[in-house]
Amino acid sequence: MTDTILSSATREVAIGFNRPFVMIGERINPTGRKLLAEEMKAGDFSRVKADAIAQVEAGAQMLDINAGIPLADEPALLAQAIELVQSVVDVPLSIDSSIIDALEAGIAVYQGKPLVNSVTGEDEVLERVLPLVARSGAAVVAISNDDTGISEDPDVRFDVAKKIVERAADHGISAADVIVDPLVMPIGAMGTAGLQVFSLVRRLREELKVNTTCGASNVSFGLPNRHAITGTFLAMAIGHGMTSAIMSPLHPEVKTAIQAANVLTGTDTDCGTWIRQHRDPNAAGGARERRSNRRRTV
Amino acid sequence: MTDTILSSATREVAIGFNRPFVMIGERINPTGRKLLAEEMKAGDFSRVKADAIAQVEAGAQMLDINAGIPLADEPALLAQAIELVQSVVDVPLSIDSSIIDALEAGIAVYQGKPLVNSVTGEDEVLERVLPLVARSGAAVVAISNDDTGISEDPDVRFDVAKKIVERAADHGISAADVIVDPLVMPIGAMGTAGLQVFSLVRRLREELKVNTTCGASNVSFGLPNRHAITGTFLAMAIGHGMTSAIMSPLHPEVKTAIQAANVLTGTDTDCGTWIRQHRDPNAAGGARERRSNRRRTV
Repeated sequence: MTDTILSSATREVAIGFNRPFVMIGERINPTGRKLLAEEMKAGDFSRVKADAIAQVEAGAQMLDINAGIPLADEPALLAQAIELVQSVVDVPLSIDSSIIDALEAGIAVYQGKPLVNSVTGEDEVLERVLPLVARSGAAVVAISNDDTGISEDPDVRFDVAKKIVERAADHGISAADVIVDPLVMPIGAMGTAGLQVFSLVRRLREELKVNTTCGASNVSFGLPNRHAITGTFLAMAIGHGMTSAIMSPLHPEVKTAIQAANVLTGTDTDCGTWIRQHRDPNAAGGARERRSNRRRTV
Repeated sequence: MTDTILSSATREVAIGFNRPFVMIGERINPTGRKLLAEEMKAGDFSRVKADAIAQVEAGAQMLDINAGIPLADEPALLAQAIELVQSVVDVPLSIDSSIIDALEAGIAVYQGKPLVNSVTGEDEVLERVLPLVARSGAAVVAISNDDTGISEDPDVRFDVAKKIVERAADHGISAADVIVDPLVMPIGAMGTAGLQVFSLVRRLREELKVNTTCGASNVSFGLPNRHAITGTFLAMAIGHGMTSAIMSPLHPEVKTAIQAANVLTGTDTDCGTWIRQHRDPNAAGGARERRSNRRRTV
């Protein structure tokens, strides 16, 4: 029964076995969002603020914050974004960068216990990121690729995850504070991508006893009706034990699939959330209010 | 790689590991359909005919035929329904009755290799149904309950399934011709119902090497937005290896979940069906035509 506890200044969220799936909002990320990138670079964070509020209103229990903009001062931008987001919403955040100075700047201003996104299995990265995670008492996303890149062999990806969990333990970071991303490939490019993730998620849960996450939308890259593929993928991954994903909470069909999967895995106790959500479909605000209260309970 | 081959006079369908999921249309069943029951009893099969055509047009690769009407001559009605349905559609049928004489009458008029639905683990039922299945060269649905009823313990349900498969072998019926129904309880009444089925389906596939089916809609009984629960359940069950279900093919969200699950388990080769379906959503007839051709390939 592994629980990963994350917090903001005022709220805790638990990602865990036998708990409802945790949606980590992916929208605050300038990669591929030209307008957002330009605004952030120019010091305009109004869209960041609006995206934070919209994602939490849509049901995200956490938000991922990325400020990776070419030729910009990423550490300063990431810290600024985090401070601003923490001033408008109270969900815990995932601090997302491949630059160690940016992670450090983000952690420095963060109130609570963040999720550091991410560390890979490369020795140099491990030895730079893990001490920072340990020192700040954060949890960390472990991405199962290493110096050789992303292996198409799920056994290799499992071994990389195992190495990261063991290395984290050497730094005093418990397995409960390591959330493994087994890496989701586009199913349109690799027909075995889904089955690989399902079996990896099972092994990670049963053998390493770690929580899991992924960048979910990648699975449907290039296909029509992407949200149906992404939502069905997440439901199936939940059936194999996946406990969180970095994703957009703004698509109703994806959210419905996740909520149905919570019902079907028994984590939505007595189908309470499902029934409340559907009692009065027009009372969206009311439903959000109730969900929001429920999420405060760890 | 277990394949169960069913046929009509002109078409074969294979239910199998690593094949697209097979939808067995459930609509031709007077249980709970008062009007249909009255019409069938009065010898009016126009609705049976229309339901057969509609389900096949909606994508059902097989149809279940049930004529269980109180105080009616079920063997005669079932035989009549089967003859009529085989005259208007060419998909293989599941002959559905708890009355041995009705199964016998249905098999007598059936053209091709039918699915006999069903046999339970009760000794008396086994010894009456299995010789009939063996004699007619049919396949059979094995429902995992016995004299003690439906156990809430999945291990007991597995053992009943194992007993039926073994007893079938004694009668010369191979495991490939036994499709096990692990029994799906309403998730609203039993929060573990989903996890039980998922783990049973895995065991049935890995240990007994049998195909599986279920009455899918039962899982969402009593809940709002039933189709979303049923569709998500089927996708998750497919993720654990379920290969067919007796269900309504008329609800788009259920079908979409199944088709997405086929993509995600790699049985929709190169996502071909998914992409064709979405190429021109308005060309439903054309899409159906193409799907229909594809299904002719076993």
